[in-house]
Amino acid sequence: MNKIITISRQFGSGGREIGAKLAQKLGIPFYDNELIARAAKESGFAEAAFDNAEKKATNSFLYSIAMGMNAYGNQDIGFTHLSLDDQLYLAQSNIISKVAQEGPCVIVGRCADYVLRENENVVNVFIWASMEARKDRAVRLYNIPKNKVEDELIKADKRRANYYNYHASEKWGKAENYHLSLRSDYIGIDNAVESIIHYIKSAEAGVNPPFTKEKGEF
Amino acid sequence: MNKIITISRQFGSGGREIGAKLAQKLGIPFYDNELIARAAKESGFAEAAFDNAEKKATNSFLYSIAMGMNAYGNQDIGFTHLSLDDQLYLAQSNIISKVAQEGPCVIVGRCADYVLRENENVVNVFIWASMEARKDRAVRLYNIPKNKVEDELIKADKRRANYYNYHASEKWGKAENYHLSLRSDYIGIDNAVESIIHYIKSAEAGVNPPFTKEKGEF
Repeated sequence: MNKIITISRQFGSGGREIGAKLAQKLGIPFYDNELIARAAKESGFAEAAFDNAEKKATNSFLYSIAMGMNAYGNQDIGFTHLSLDDQLYLAQSNIISKVAQEGPCVIVGRCADYVLRENENVVNVFIWASMEARKDRAVRLYNIPKNKVEDELIKADKRRANYYNYHASEKWGKAENYHLSLRSDYIGIDNAVESIIHYIKSAEAGVNPPFTKEKGEF
Repeated sequence: MNKIITISRQFGSGGREIGAKLAQKLGIPFYDNELIARAAKESGFAEAAFDNAEKKATNSFLYSIAMGMNAYGNQDIGFTHLSLDDQLYLAQSNIISKVAQEGPCVIVGRCADYVLRENENVVNVFIWASMEARKDRAVRLYNIPKNKVEDELIKADKRRANYYNYHASEKWGKAENYHLSLRSDYIGIDNAVESIIHYIKSAEAGVNPPFTKEKGEF
């Protein structure tokens, strides 16, 4: 399997764990916080600054770079013309492009699907789960108090959606942004990993019969 | 496999064909226009009237029934209080509920996922495809002129979205409305059928390991 797999996910949906297990099963690198660390190192930003980037996303990223700057060739950009958040986003995008060039991998979050949208070797996956399952998982895994967990989940998803909608000018969680979207708590983590592998292997085996046929050929 | 499978789909994505092949493969009934015919027959409406229903959906269906009427028990409703479109929707919803009670089946379109939202035996699927693939398919299968096809596709999807958003008060095409969403032209019709079967069989095999684990149990 020779794909770069991006995973977008609701908070508490197990998307990160699914990504990690998928990478392990396929024997390819997994990028999540590690990606942030690399980006921070190479661009000179402090890791802590990245942690705040998602929280501040508001309006249009494209607007702020529409003043004659090239969005993705950040080496040519006068960094001082951009807000700190936009600089962080560009630094991250560069890292994502680099690791994608290095070969197959799994990348979780950080608008990787959008950053790599011109790369035909990419498969984009979205993971969601029922609110009940996510609450239960968040309480157990992240020690969030029961009476606050629904609020925290909704806020976390809003941050992810804002970050994505701001930088990618696309709608986070819209089915047609992802090759494959699935509800994880309905089948479980391991089965979700298998479903993703099944989908990608199908694509690699080829589209047969052809997707577009002559009229009456059914 | 003992599920009621609903399929929502972009125009030209092959969703109807996927649904038909899925039903055939599973040996269960397939409802699409046939559903309309049954609904029309049992409710006394002309089939032609149903064809117009999707085209007129605009504002909130719930608003129009908020005047003390029960949305889904249409036998108790004074039909004359509702617009023709809303009456058609209720008649359809009744048919969808009935066929779902009869046993496993595949139902394409008509807000079936929303109508059956309380039924735990339902699996909702969304099918989309790239604009290029859909254009190609629509030109060949539906004889739509090449210079008009993109416009027609966009309009058809808008009608479907309006119909859904009006009646279901939910967003059509939002990943978290469907257990499984997939891009069909990337893997092909037959592989899409297999992917759906793979997902449902995984669910039936059981969620193992449990979706929610104790902290540190990874």
